[in-house]
Amino acid sequence: MYVILVYDFDEKRVVKALNICRKYLTWIQRSVFEGELTEGNLYLLKNELKKIMKENDSVIIFKLEGKFMVNKEIMGKKISDNNIL
Amino acid sequence: MYVILVYDFDEKRVVKALNICRKYLTWIQRSVFEGELTEGNLYLLKNELKKIMKENDSVIIFKLEGKFMVNKEIMGKKISDNNIL
Repeated sequence: MYVILVYDFDEKRVVKALNICRKYLTWIQRSVFEGELTEGNLYLLKNELKKIMKENDSVIIFKLEGKFMVNKEIMGKKISDNNIL
Repeated sequence: MYVILVYDFDEKRVVKALNICRKYLTWIQRSVFEGELTEGNLYLLKNELKKIMKENDSVIIFKLEGKFMVNKEIMGKKISDNNIL
């Protein structure tokens, strides 16, 4: 399954959230990740995020059957890991 | 076509970007929008964003054939327009 994950975490927790997501997905923009994931790894990812989430934090996960279903277009700065922070 | 748009704008331009995107798509998280769009309206949206974009700004557009292709899951705060800012 192909996953696009976007999150909105309080400043206090955003680095923790980032480090969790980067274990499972590719970081493509400040709060955006994508990649292929098994159901099992998605379950683990969600559990890790749930452990650190507080009331005002938000995670949206878009699940698709495969990468072939989505056409991605990037305008402006192309994100590489070293220039996102 | 179904579109998921995520952006990363400098603080100086983010409100402008937000107002442009909200004309075309539904605002679902701080820098995330989704909705059905025709090719024509996507073209107009991209042009409006290009006019305000500067070097460090970034927009990623995920295009899918239809909403039926994506399964969306929300964890944590459900965003309604009045509690995103």
